[in-house]
Amino acid sequence: MGSLEASHDLKNGSTHMLNPLDPDEFRRQGHMIIDFLADYYKNIEKYPVRSQVEPGYLSFRLPDSAPLDPEPIETIIQDVENHIIPGITHWQSPNYFAHFPSSGSIAGFLGEMVSTGFNVVGFNWVSSPAATELESIVMDWFGKMLQLPTSFLFSGGGGGVLQGTTCEAILCTLIAARDQVLNQVGRGSIVKLVVYGSDQTHFALQKAARIAGISPKNFRAILTTKDDAFGLSPNSLESAIVLDLAVGLIPLFLCATVGTTSSTAVDPLDPLSNVAKRYGVWVHVDAAYARSACICPEFRHFIDGIEGANSFSLNAHKWFFTNLDCCCLWVKDPNALIKALSTNPECLRNKATESHQVVDYKDWQIQLSRRFRAMKLWLVLRSYGVVNLQNLIRSHVDMAKYFEGLVGMDKRFEVVVPRNFAMVCFRISPTAIGDRLKSGDEKIVNEVNRNLLASVNGSGRVYMTHDVVGGVYMIRFAVGATLTDYRHVDMAWEVVQDCAHAMLTKS
Amino acid sequence: MGSLEASHDLKNGSTHMLNPLDPDEFRRQGHMIIDFLADYYKNIEKYPVRSQVEPGYLSFRLPDSAPLDPEPIETIIQDVENHIIPGITHWQSPNYFAHFPSSGSIAGFLGEMVSTGFNVVGFNWVSSPAATELESIVMDWFGKMLQLPTSFLFSGGGGGVLQGTTCEAILCTLIAARDQVLNQVGRGSIVKLVVYGSDQTHFALQKAARIAGISPKNFRAILTTKDDAFGLSPNSLESAIVLDLAVGLIPLFLCATVGTTSSTAVDPLDPLSNVAKRYGVWVHVDAAYARSACICPEFRHFIDGIEGANSFSLNAHKWFFTNLDCCCLWVKDPNALIKALSTNPECLRNKATESHQVVDYKDWQIQLSRRFRAMKLWLVLRSYGVVNLQNLIRSHVDMAKYFEGLVGMDKRFEVVVPRNFAMVCFRISPTAIGDRLKSGDEKIVNEVNRNLLASVNGSGRVYMTHDVVGGVYMIRFAVGATLTDYRHVDMAWEVVQDCAHAMLTKS
Repeated sequence: MGSLEASHDLKNGSTHMLNPLDPDEFRRQGHMIIDFLADYYKNIEKYPVRSQVEPGYLSFRLPDSAPLDPEPIETIIQDVENHIIPGITHWQSPNYFAHFPSSGSIAGFLGEMVSTGFNVVGFNWVSSPAATELESIVMDWFGKMLQLPTSFLFSGGGGGVLQGTTCEAILCTLIAARDQVLNQVGRGSIVKLVVYGSDQTHFALQKAARIAGISPKNFRAILTTKDDAFGLSPNSLESAIVLDLAVGLIPLFLCATVGTTSSTAVDPLDPLSNVAKRYGVWVHVDAAYARSACICPEFRHFIDGIEGANSFSLNAHKWFFTNLDCCCLWVKDPNALIKALSTNPECLRNKATESHQVVDYKDWQIQLSRRFRAMKLWLVLRSYGVVNLQNLIRSHVDMAKYFEGLVGMDKRFEVVVPRNFAMVCFRISPTAIGDRLKSGDEKIVNEVNRNLLASVNGSGRVYMTHDVVGGVYMIRFAVGATLTDYRHVDMAWEVVQDCAHAMLTKS
Repeated sequence: MGSLEASHDLKNGSTHMLNPLDPDEFRRQGHMIIDFLADYYKNIEKYPVRSQVEPGYLSFRLPDSAPLDPEPIETIIQDVENHIIPGITHWQSPNYFAHFPSSGSIAGFLGEMVSTGFNVVGFNWVSSPAATELESIVMDWFGKMLQLPTSFLFSGGGGGVLQGTTCEAILCTLIAARDQVLNQVGRGSIVKLVVYGSDQTHFALQKAARIAGISPKNFRAILTTKDDAFGLSPNSLESAIVLDLAVGLIPLFLCATVGTTSSTAVDPLDPLSNVAKRYGVWVHVDAAYARSACICPEFRHFIDGIEGANSFSLNAHKWFFTNLDCCCLWVKDPNALIKALSTNPECLRNKATESHQVVDYKDWQIQLSRRFRAMKLWLVLRSYGVVNLQNLIRSHVDMAKYFEGLVGMDKRFEVVVPRNFAMVCFRISPTAIGDRLKSGDEKIVNEVNRNLLASVNGSGRVYMTHDVVGGVYMIRFAVGATLTDYRHVDMAWEVVQDCAHAMLTKS
């Protein structure tokens, strides 16, 4: 029994151990961080929106190795203030108009806190029934808000799942589609499978296709045109499919987009689904950014035709006040996902799973372990309510409209593509650049606008990003940060005008 | 200018909008949730550890659709208390000994709060330099704590990245290995690629292989034996490789495990790497659970031979006090990852990336969007310090040793496999089950132990899970929940003894 005696010694020695979950200390430190973050939001406008540090800045400020001994939370908070905040690009700043927004909220934050506090690993139902069931319930709630066909809801035989990002959602559905086909035609045909998108489709599709083992040669980024407002033409899709069939390839998967990243273009879902259906192609609809708007009846038409899709996704962490990460994926046929992604190891065998009465979400995604993301979406829906959420979305669209109006009033500028949601793509127009410009010399125009954006962002007062569509360099002005109000839009426009004035008078 | 006037009307109407990030309201509600969670930790022992609800319980308690109007946070917290907590399996309970732990901490929680509060989307360096740089720094810190060869550190030409889960880490490295080979031998050879693990390897490997398009026929789960303590034998690996080569297949990837999920078995890294190297096979080491222990010098030998691997991963969210999710992946050749996973769309073009002076972590993982996970790992390392972290790990191992001693003193029980870390695999021994038992009638023994576990978990007082290794059903007793102390281990053993007593006297 010598070893047990030794263990008893250990037992007696344990009383002086640190307790990293001591409730009183949790309370004390937790309140400190809440105050720190409340102050951060209060003062957020005083920081440059895009971080202005140089590469490698942090390694000069932090030690080379982890400390041997504990450091007090007060010191750590001070270091966050002094060393981390200068390296933060402030996505929550009201002057953030870059990329797409990542609109956080109190409810989204609190939901994340509660799920981080419970810290459950909800891979299957029994690992925390509430995590699974709340997820199924809020996905049906959200589906109803979007007036989805019931075939996408649990109540109608489909279902929804919360993933981290659109990349994962596309990858999962692509794998489901791929394995459905390969089970029929044999694994050897993987080299023949073809994936379709447009030249405006988010690069997540191309990455997912690569990960799924689709040959890069078989990835089609179908050309769009200004005439189609950069939406994917059903005729072009059909031509591409017919060409691929003619050389013995197998059309597999189409990703249609509602609200592209470059310019918020909208692919016409109904005719695209009809083409896809004729050739047995799985249709995924990526509405990562724009779908949130579709909770407003006046924007719902953008997803008309969704009933023809097999799956679709939106990011609640973009424009739906749910802190990162939270991607909503709905599928009509959960079994297609489950067949491709399920695993049933002995260590997870349990009665609930064997009763087939429960959802085990590990079989709907890449990962086994999963966070309790439904909590934050539930808090957002309940804390704000559908009416407020609609009005918040509308207010962002209205601010974008207002900005569009400002651009329209200044003859030096032009709006480059039609505005669909809360993003305006604009530039200094060729005519403003002057007489020296030969007609059609887009390179110079692009260079001027690139310099304008660099100058705008270098001011630290606002942050916008760019894209190039149809050869045209555009500055993207995306409204959606939670704290943005009209005065920030006015200020942003003032910065743009000032920078343009300086540039144009100089040249 | 009609449209601008309309916009001005909108502008004037905006003053009454709800502000979902109002700092004062953030402060008020944030403090409430901190108090709610502090109370939760204080009272956690009063809840049944494994949730005792029935499938579908929550749909009877919640409405069918999202509310139109806002609901106060007080109501929502009450609902969490009344409706969510009963459906939670309490992974943070000191009486949680199931699966592997998900050991949260105050520092892990605070780190998650700070990163959720900043809510930055750190896909590339410029999107928030601090998020990227802190990640690189803490990965080097952690690597040094584990005495990794410098070839895995940024300071030595390799590097580390924080992923969500081991599933993602394995998938990413597998894709990197796959594309390296396919670039040499042609895409058509994807059907010839072979992936190796043992019958004890986590099913994440099989799932990753499937996602990556490896033919299910080409997945090798090499048999392990009790004589090898369920570690993968280098001879068996070599035999499998030779057989595959003989039929024209291409050996691609080996996943070796330090601390298997079933029984914490350890694959011998050094000889396995030597075999793999001879055949050009990529070696990934999955130490999801056990690697944390290797920050203690006395456990470091378990990863001897790591210098022969190409990549390896551990989950800081398992046994390292970092709240879910946080998987650390180190690679010797970041370029292999980047070549397979990078994307360079116009919309993300920026000077820092083009200077090649920065890391863009989007090219090291599946997803584009990524949370600022380094914050919580940094807070854990600084708040506790290396010495405390070592002692916490040791205290869990000591508690497991102590439990092992208790099992050893009771002749009705036996420890089934050698204990390596903080998990004890035990069962009621065949001899205790009685005379009616024919020798070798494992089925009955397994059934008795299955019933014992059901009875133990049904008590709600503790939660353990099981696995089957070499045909033997074992109860896994995994110490690692942050709040666990010796009294909980004593209590758990008492529950096991009581349930066994009731069963054995009844039969």
